[in-house]
Amino acid sequence: MAEEKQRRRRGGGRAGNAERRGTAVIDQMPWNPPVNIDRPTEPLTEEGVLAIHEGAMRILEEIGIEILNPEAVELFRAHGGSTINGENVRMGRDYVMEMVAQAPESWTITPRNPERTITIGGKHLNFGNVSSPPSYWDMEIGRKVTGTREMCANLLKLSQFFNCIHFVGGYPVEPQDIHASVRHLDVLYDKLTLTDKVAHAYCLGKERVEDVMEMVRIAGGHSDAEFEADPKMYSNINSTSPLKHDYPMLDGWIRLARRNQGLVVTPFTLAGAMAPVTMSGAVAQSLAEGLIAIVLAQIVRPGACCAIGTFTSNVDMKSGAPAFGTPEYMRATQMTGQLARFYKLPMRASGVCAANVPDAQATWETSNSLWSAVQAGANMVYHAAGWLEGGLIASPEKFVMDCEILQQIQRYMDPSLTATGPDEIAFDAIQEVGDQGHFFGIQHTQDRYTTAFYQPFLSDWRNYEAWEAAGAVWTAQRAHQTYKDIIASFEAPPMDEGIREELAAFVERRKSEGGAPTDF
Amino acid sequence: MAEEKQRRRRGGGRAGNAERRGTAVIDQMPWNPPVNIDRPTEPLTEEGVLAIHEGAMRILEEIGIEILNPEAVELFRAHGGSTINGENVRMGRDYVMEMVAQAPESWTITPRNPERTITIGGKHLNFGNVSSPPSYWDMEIGRKVTGTREMCANLLKLSQFFNCIHFVGGYPVEPQDIHASVRHLDVLYDKLTLTDKVAHAYCLGKERVEDVMEMVRIAGGHSDAEFEADPKMYSNINSTSPLKHDYPMLDGWIRLARRNQGLVVTPFTLAGAMAPVTMSGAVAQSLAEGLIAIVLAQIVRPGACCAIGTFTSNVDMKSGAPAFGTPEYMRATQMTGQLARFYKLPMRASGVCAANVPDAQATWETSNSLWSAVQAGANMVYHAAGWLEGGLIASPEKFVMDCEILQQIQRYMDPSLTATGPDEIAFDAIQEVGDQGHFFGIQHTQDRYTTAFYQPFLSDWRNYEAWEAAGAVWTAQRAHQTYKDIIASFEAPPMDEGIREELAAFVERRKSEGGAPTDF
Repeated sequence: MAEEKQRRRRGGGRAGNAERRGTAVIDQMPWNPPVNIDRPTEPLTEEGVLAIHEGAMRILEEIGIEILNPEAVELFRAHGGSTINGENVRMGRDYVMEMVAQAPESWTITPRNPERTITIGGKHLNFGNVSSPPSYWDMEIGRKVTGTREMCANLLKLSQFFNCIHFVGGYPVEPQDIHASVRHLDVLYDKLTLTDKVAHAYCLGKERVEDVMEMVRIAGGHSDAEFEADPKMYSNINSTSPLKHDYPMLDGWIRLARRNQGLVVTPFTLAGAMAPVTMSGAVAQSLAEGLIAIVLAQIVRPGACCAIGTFTSNVDMKSGAPAFGTPEYMRATQMTGQLARFYKLPMRASGVCAANVPDAQATWETSNSLWSAVQAGANMVYHAAGWLEGGLIASPEKFVMDCEILQQIQRYMDPSLTATGPDEIAFDAIQEVGDQGHFFGIQHTQDRYTTAFYQPFLSDWRNYEAWEAAGAVWTAQRAHQTYKDIIASFEAPPMDEGIREELAAFVERRKSEGGAPTDF
Repeated sequence: MAEEKQRRRRGGGRAGNAERRGTAVIDQMPWNPPVNIDRPTEPLTEEGVLAIHEGAMRILEEIGIEILNPEAVELFRAHGGSTINGENVRMGRDYVMEMVAQAPESWTITPRNPERTITIGGKHLNFGNVSSPPSYWDMEIGRKVTGTREMCANLLKLSQFFNCIHFVGGYPVEPQDIHASVRHLDVLYDKLTLTDKVAHAYCLGKERVEDVMEMVRIAGGHSDAEFEADPKMYSNINSTSPLKHDYPMLDGWIRLARRNQGLVVTPFTLAGAMAPVTMSGAVAQSLAEGLIAIVLAQIVRPGACCAIGTFTSNVDMKSGAPAFGTPEYMRATQMTGQLARFYKLPMRASGVCAANVPDAQATWETSNSLWSAVQAGANMVYHAAGWLEGGLIASPEKFVMDCEILQQIQRYMDPSLTATGPDEIAFDAIQEVGDQGHFFGIQHTQDRYTTAFYQPFLSDWRNYEAWEAAGAVWTAQRAHQTYKDIIASFEAPPMDEGIREELAAFVERRKSEGGAPTDF
């Protein structure tokens, strides 16, 4: 079959190799987290916004949320304003709104390299790498395999290399060749030495959270006071939908709030499974589960830096499997954006898909989810690069492909594209060319052509014949080569040798102490 | 390489065959041209809109457009309002606005099956097939080949089969095995018998235009008076940018206007080549070239049904090759949408890409262009399915993949997704499930699960293991099988036998008369 011939040619040949060499150094956009200049897409009327708010408030007032963490329950009790019944916590809307109003509308996270500081709030749009898949797939291996430390490190290198990745979320793949008790120590050592961008801690037990906060403090060369002056890192917790928050997530949430780090709560409300089959009901439930965590953070530290996340999607009603980047997902994300603005809270969304390999389906599902995050006015976009199979697989080819889309979103937000000054209307240039010739050679073009248009690093704009002569390489295969080239030429960002040694010593000491318990 | 193994497995195997059989009948959405419920994305301020309008008006007032058609020049002269200098025609903005105001804001096209009537204007969104590529590619052939009548007929069958294709534009591929003098007769016979949707005529000489209008009249069983009572078909013309309209396009334009058929004018203004390198300048030039054709149509027939099209994109400044679905393309489309509303004219946009094969690049470029058409408030989206290599290649796999995206756009526009009534907020369902169990089994879900969510026909939502066991088939290969299954089971829409014979007799007679001259 022609398809197979294509694959064989893809495998080698002088033209093919030339094509590969051509991608060795990619010309990417500089570090420049975009500002979202578009008016958000708002499918809800004002009445619709109020209807979902009413739903979320009635859930908190009449049903309540199960808080499976005694310390958290005690904090709610001591602060007053809540009705406690065992682990069930309810609260009135006035109290909720008063507490949520204490959360800042916008805040920053400052990593060890202050030039990589990001702003969470307002019109600021930040993209992060895929986080937490247990498995890995690349075109060379050609099948789904268990994640390792090397795979994790390579994906961290991609996260550092691409300027369109603004923060480094959870583990880009779970390195299951490291024992769970010390995994956080090795991966954070890799993350803090291979990248200089904003880092994240999992809320999986007090040792992990405290270790990661300490390692981030050390990497930044901060005193405790400096570390706690403003967020230097963040965490994300998920409620256990429906209507529950479990022990370790809330434990970490409280610890990070006490040390003034960034707090993101993201209920995983799959419509039809853990939430109502109707999207506005799933959004209302998600908001109720998220808002109570933000109230808790404000109890611990008035003014704690919080963001509300959405992970509301639908399931395949034939199999119950989660679906992503669907029309329902896009609308749920946009609706959540409207409510996040209603509560004056920064918002987190995601770049996700259900596809198993980096093909066309993966692209339309991921593109739909990324654009809906943009349209929702999201400030943090998790999993923006490298996610496959509903988050069960991380793929370097998908990572590279997604970064091409992310760069295009960054360029799309450049106000120069829609500028309408005399130089842009270019009447004189139009008059100069008239009805003859073309605009290539004129001064107006010469003055601008190097920067006038976005230049992709992965798209192949050659005609079919030139593309075929170069090996007829499809996108995923080009992305594989780009990934290989980036890893081969990767240089870690500079780090003070004393700090590196202090980090290594901390890891050694904590390992000798046994790391973290693994009894959950 | 694993990739190759995958391809071999894809080639066959029981699981693979089962997968293929599974797609034999696809469950597609019903015929239902969407209504665009979103507020358009508007990157231009009011001042920006006026600046582009000012630029377009100055082009028409101070530079003028070359009208390479003596009859058209004479029509402008006789009507007054224009300043004629040889073939150069200029006109003042008051005259332009007065004439353009005569064009209806919304109009319909009624094909031979009145149930397939489409509305051009308002919030109505209609998708059409790829039009006019000289070449064809499919996965079985595996290379770029010259279009034939059979390939063209197969793409017409896809255009009829998919309910998300609302009109049939130009030839989905140029059947170069038919002599140019009679090609229009054979293809229109195929189009009018294989489809019952809105048809199109190329403005390539009076014989072709008159023949096609006559064939559409016959297919609809109309008298001349019925045919001319309102549009039964349409044409699209392109200006010869910069600032020219050529003879045959305007000749057809005038003939269709006289018989009250649909008129779409779409300048092909590549920024940096045939238009300024700055997008707002390219848009201003495109509008000037388009508006003068609409003025001409109003001279021929006050109230003539017109739409203004955009095909403004950027070039690859390294090669001069056109690029599509870029950030600049998206913004130019959105800006044109703002100006189309300013002129109260229906709008046409496109679903396009530069990619050579139906891979991930093809998907993000096409998805970007389709969504920008939606965001622009376009009423007709040309080339919405099947386009590759900047329009030089038509592909049935790409056609099927694009229809999956088009269905998702249709579903995205369903107001039920964002409804916020009590049944959708579902407080009682949330209370019923509480913090235990899940929503699968409850009545609220059971009452809705069959229609609650979009069901894709091409996306594979199975987990990796099930997908792998079924042959590990990537999207393009699944689309190939879907295409084959659709063609194998295709049934042409019913047509009165007398009408079919009349059409066939017309084709025979015109062929015996030599068809159309081919001297241009």
